[in-house]
Amino acid sequence: MMLKRYFLLTFLLLTAFFSEAQKATWIWYPGDYEIWLSNQMQNRRTDRGSFFPVFWKVDAHFVLMDFHKDFVLSQPEQVAIFTEGNYNVKIDGQLIEGQPSSILVPAGKHRINIKVFSQATVPAIFVEGKTIVSDASWLVTFEDKEWIDETGKTSDISATKWLQAGAWNFNDPKKLPSQFKLPTTAMQPIGSQIKGNEWVLDFGKETFGFVKLQGLSGKGKLIIYYGESKEEALSNQGAVTLDVLQLNGLSKKDSVMPLSKAFRYVRIVKDATVQLAGVSMLHEYADLQERGGFTCSDPQINKIYEVAKYTLHLNSREFFIDGIKRDRWVWSGDAYQSYLMNYYLYFDNPTVSRTILALRGKDPVTGHVNTIMDYTFYWFLSIYDYYQYSGDKTFINQFYPRMQSLMEYCLGRRNKDGFMEGLPGDWVFVDWADKLSKKGALSFEQLLFCRSLETMAICAKLVNDNAAASKYQKEAEQLKAKLMSTYWNTSKQAMVHSLIDGAQSDNVTRYTNMFAIFFDYFNQDQKAAVKNSVLLNDKIQKITTPYMRFYELEALCAMGEQNFVTKEIKDYWGGMLNLGATSFWEEYNPNKKGAEHYAMYGRAFGKSLCHAWGASPIYLLGKYYLGVKPTNPGYATYTIEPALGGLEWIQGKVPTPNGEVGLYCNKIEIKLSTANAGNGTLIIKSKTLPICTEASIVAKANQTYEIQVGPGKQYCVSYTAL
Amino acid sequence: MMLKRYFLLTFLLLTAFFSEAQKATWIWYPGDYEIWLSNQMQNRRTDRGSFFPVFWKVDAHFVLMDFHKDFVLSQPEQVAIFTEGNYNVKIDGQLIEGQPSSILVPAGKHRINIKVFSQATVPAIFVEGKTIVSDASWLVTFEDKEWIDETGKTSDISATKWLQAGAWNFNDPKKLPSQFKLPTTAMQPIGSQIKGNEWVLDFGKETFGFVKLQGLSGKGKLIIYYGESKEEALSNQGAVTLDVLQLNGLSKKDSVMPLSKAFRYVRIVKDATVQLAGVSMLHEYADLQERGGFTCSDPQINKIYEVAKYTLHLNSREFFIDGIKRDRWVWSGDAYQSYLMNYYLYFDNPTVSRTILALRGKDPVTGHVNTIMDYTFYWFLSIYDYYQYSGDKTFINQFYPRMQSLMEYCLGRRNKDGFMEGLPGDWVFVDWADKLSKKGALSFEQLLFCRSLETMAICAKLVNDNAAASKYQKEAEQLKAKLMSTYWNTSKQAMVHSLIDGAQSDNVTRYTNMFAIFFDYFNQDQKAAVKNSVLLNDKIQKITTPYMRFYELEALCAMGEQNFVTKEIKDYWGGMLNLGATSFWEEYNPNKKGAEHYAMYGRAFGKSLCHAWGASPIYLLGKYYLGVKPTNPGYATYTIEPALGGLEWIQGKVPTPNGEVGLYCNKIEIKLSTANAGNGTLIIKSKTLPICTEASIVAKANQTYEIQVGPGKQYCVSYTAL
Repeated sequence: MMLKRYFLLTFLLLTAFFSEAQKATWIWYPGDYEIWLSNQMQNRRTDRGSFFPVFWKVDAHFVLMDFHKDFVLSQPEQVAIFTEGNYNVKIDGQLIEGQPSSILVPAGKHRINIKVFSQATVPAIFVEGKTIVSDASWLVTFEDKEWIDETGKTSDISATKWLQAGAWNFNDPKKLPSQFKLPTTAMQPIGSQIKGNEWVLDFGKETFGFVKLQGLSGKGKLIIYYGESKEEALSNQGAVTLDVLQLNGLSKKDSVMPLSKAFRYVRIVKDATVQLAGVSMLHEYADLQERGGFTCSDPQINKIYEVAKYTLHLNSREFFIDGIKRDRWVWSGDAYQSYLMNYYLYFDNPTVSRTILALRGKDPVTGHVNTIMDYTFYWFLSIYDYYQYSGDKTFINQFYPRMQSLMEYCLGRRNKDGFMEGLPGDWVFVDWADKLSKKGALSFEQLLFCRSLETMAICAKLVNDNAAASKYQKEAEQLKAKLMSTYWNTSKQAMVHSLIDGAQSDNVTRYTNMFAIFFDYFNQDQKAAVKNSVLLNDKIQKITTPYMRFYELEALCAMGEQNFVTKEIKDYWGGMLNLGATSFWEEYNPNKKGAEHYAMYGRAFGKSLCHAWGASPIYLLGKYYLGVKPTNPGYATYTIEPALGGLEWIQGKVPTPNGEVGLYCNKIEIKLSTANAGNGTLIIKSKTLPICTEASIVAKANQTYEIQVGPGKQYCVSYTAL
Repeated sequence: MMLKRYFLLTFLLLTAFFSEAQKATWIWYPGDYEIWLSNQMQNRRTDRGSFFPVFWKVDAHFVLMDFHKDFVLSQPEQVAIFTEGNYNVKIDGQLIEGQPSSILVPAGKHRINIKVFSQATVPAIFVEGKTIVSDASWLVTFEDKEWIDETGKTSDISATKWLQAGAWNFNDPKKLPSQFKLPTTAMQPIGSQIKGNEWVLDFGKETFGFVKLQGLSGKGKLIIYYGESKEEALSNQGAVTLDVLQLNGLSKKDSVMPLSKAFRYVRIVKDATVQLAGVSMLHEYADLQERGGFTCSDPQINKIYEVAKYTLHLNSREFFIDGIKRDRWVWSGDAYQSYLMNYYLYFDNPTVSRTILALRGKDPVTGHVNTIMDYTFYWFLSIYDYYQYSGDKTFINQFYPRMQSLMEYCLGRRNKDGFMEGLPGDWVFVDWADKLSKKGALSFEQLLFCRSLETMAICAKLVNDNAAASKYQKEAEQLKAKLMSTYWNTSKQAMVHSLIDGAQSDNVTRYTNMFAIFFDYFNQDQKAAVKNSVLLNDKIQKITTPYMRFYELEALCAMGEQNFVTKEIKDYWGGMLNLGATSFWEEYNPNKKGAEHYAMYGRAFGKSLCHAWGASPIYLLGKYYLGVKPTNPGYATYTIEPALGGLEWIQGKVPTPNGEVGLYCNKIEIKLSTANAGNGTLIIKSKTLPICTEASIVAKANQTYEIQVGPGKQYCVSYTAL
């Protein structure tokens, strides 16, 4: 263990030595700013005007931090220092008097240490000289263990555990990380109805931001009721969010509400003694670039794709949140889907890694992520996906210890059969569904647990923790064997929902069966059987959340059922659009009518009408229609396997770490432009031998052909769609 | 485990139900305010004007906290609510709109929940109604795990882990806990020398506080050099603390330095363009009541006792710190001695428990307490002592989990022989001493480790964790047997210092041998042997710190060598007084001369001249001369075993949880007044049968007699001292 640390340290030091001078940026202990920022964000939730915080453990940053890096200078250099927090500076271990805003570093090899204390905000530094700059190559520790003995000798700190610093894109020394805010843009309502002291404003579509009361004056009360639906805004008792203002003889001014809210409609009710000149809003948004895209021959699908993008964008904020009206929290299962959608739209790694870090928090682990057992498992899965798409191995290196401690928590909570069963305080969620049993050990949880163990084995190998890799691999194999043998019911031709006191329950649900397909845990016979016994079987309880429809349709896509999925997307997401949705919902049950759709959690307007998990067509269309996905981390290799899914043509782009993959496909022609790096394999199903002048074609079984495609190139293929 | 939690919860709820209405006070998560406050305090250290923080992990409070209590009201009650942080209030699970400053609680049984978020300061509440008040009977949790399902049903929170709230004595709703400051009182210098722009001021004795520059005006530089000695204040390069002021044409005003400092002397050097009318200070102190006391026939001992009290008082602040000039930190080994002295002077439990909590911080454990292996062990020992003196079982209940996790850390770091040996990053301290070997497994560390395991066994039993109690007991017994057999050297008639690669080193030091005496690990033969082979053997390296002289003299006292100890106290502490000390030092080597005494850590004035561990005569005189100590927790039973130690007479008081034990003793008479509770045993050595009219006397072996004494009584005994 010590040996490994030593090697790691050496490696990091060498990295530090030889990395080129880069742009200065604010840096901190990795994960700490993310946790701090998520605390700020999650504590903005209100419910009927009351503060509404989370119910799980909320962590804090390390309040004392040591930053250092070694530099070799050919000439002396003046270096400016900015910090958040009380600090000191050392050059080669020598403390500089006071808190210098600038230091002169002599020529030669020197170590600069900056130690910062900050209780309220995250200790952070910004250092800028000609060649000496603060960036992620600096090393940090929360315990330098550098003591001095009675003779003045300094302790040996070679065992001190250093991590590479965390950073984002805060490149301005004058803007402290704690001052970060998302940008806003002014928006006007598209319609308003004013009746005496009641104003109803329509912003035209679901939006998010700060209501601005213009020319506010007078004395008295003013209430703002927010509504995702008009019905909600009109409901005094039902509106989930509201603002109550007590004005004390204010003279005319514009007043911006302190908290951003989700709404399409705003209703203002005021005392006659309060004057108001107008209402607008500041739309708050994350400045993310759309790098992916999709269009096709079906206008309804195109509209669905546009609304899905808008839904995801509204829910992509400092972090990927669940929904903008109500929780505004970071939920692991919800975020997991946003990550996947992100890989096909923004490919914004920082939002992914920030969200993963915010969810994990810190040790010790005292509960499941968001208190939900399945959400813990999605957290593991998200790391594997992140690595696969981004190739960001540094992230795995940095946070592997947090993966380990969370997995140890899980391993310590297995029942006597080795299965994960809900213990008191554990929320076993799976999905919002009528009368879904959570009793006993659910097959769905074991499936996710098994995949999590596989993820741990992979990550352990990545960080060269071979003993742990073997351990996790063995645990995963044992669990998988036990899971598949214990829960499979031959007469039902399906995995059953649960084991209660060791015996199979009679219940079959879609969840385990559909995941087992795209996890590739079923053999071919099982897959084929389950398609009919479960997926296409109307007797099995239907899914009413876009959340689980995500996986249901993914399973069908993975089995090549895109034609069926196209119809389902049009029915389900098209169904919401037909009801006037301007963003996609938390739950949609086509059997409900009118304002019934807005109810949930026992509240008339409890449902979120803009929920990230509603945006899954982005992912399905990108991964299973354009058909682009990495087969090695960071798109070092990838496949392009277009599927029309019954459409006349599809066209779009899929982002990778190095440029986009562009594709046009109709029934006779495929045009491909590859990413700037990585080697692709274009996989085509064709009735005829495809023709491509730019590359050679390899025929495979079952009317399948493969073409190896290189980086930064264009290909045109003639073929005949099946 | 769950069963136990359930019982604990029931117990706590019952306590909450039936406890009487008390005074309202600010409450928080137990330990969190203590950690926050210690962060504030420890980060006040500066060195030559630079910020100088600790080098170990610094923890933070839980930023989100749920407080609750159930009340039964005979009539409705209006309750005022104050918080530090953003909050919400629930009555019977129903969220009250907004952040109410007052709520009306209806008659009947109701649960009040208040949930508070605060990043910069500790979430805290103050609640005050006629009968509903916030106090330590409220329950708190950092994860209520109270979620709501899709139907609006709330989760079962019976498994939520609640602790009783923490509190101190913050009984004013308008004074937020984060605003707490120690009181100050104005002090004038007793002498000053002004030469041009250089002022030297003498405050007459070591003191601590904020220098106040009176009538400051002008433009230019002013430097304050602080000195515990005059030499230090006069040394531009040597003064350990200083303040540098840059004045920009200030008009006449008084300026108080932002940070308190330790000094007797202050030297001010200013530009001629800066005017100064006078210098005084605000002495900052902890408002602690002296409940113990000691006087005797020897004026030098009396003077030593007075200076010891002053030394301890200066170092008793928000926490027991090591020394006031330099570290101003909470160090476990140092604090351990302050606790013991405190039991014989202030008996201030809050300062003890605050210090213990600040030292422990939070999980996960990533290093030894203060990074020092022995300091981890003193932390365990301090808890046993605290319980023994105070009887505060609630404290053990609250913090047993933190004891467990720290012990698990230790158990996980043993070498192949089961001994604790310094691993990289561990500081093995023992004492400041020339060329003290830290190589291999030190017998001293095993001894403390063994005692720590014994403490864990006791505390586990106290909280009814019987499985753990057996485990720790077994570990302690095995370690003790191995320790005593492996390190005892028959030819040396002593425990050797260390094992290196499994073999005894040739070295014998005092540490292990003297601790083994008062830990009662030696048999009678070993004790007698070690007295001559080690304790009274001048060939064994002498101790030069009051820190280890504490234990050396304690060992001698425990063997009845008070006569010898009296001489040692007069020599050693009297030696410092003869050199002009006004408080006792970090180290004192009588062989040094003049300003040599001030040097340490390779710095001319590195030594602290006011170090808590210098005050040990308070403890020795109280415990081994007045001879009072608890034999059951909280002085339920105790012994009084006076020893004149060669003095003509001694007189004093020892505080207990219920009043003081008062004693006068000369060679023929003992006068005793007992505490208001608890049963004492007066143990007397007498040449003649003692006479006492108030109680019966039982003769024991070896001219020893015992008298059972009841609470709140006075006894007079005639006897003949040996």
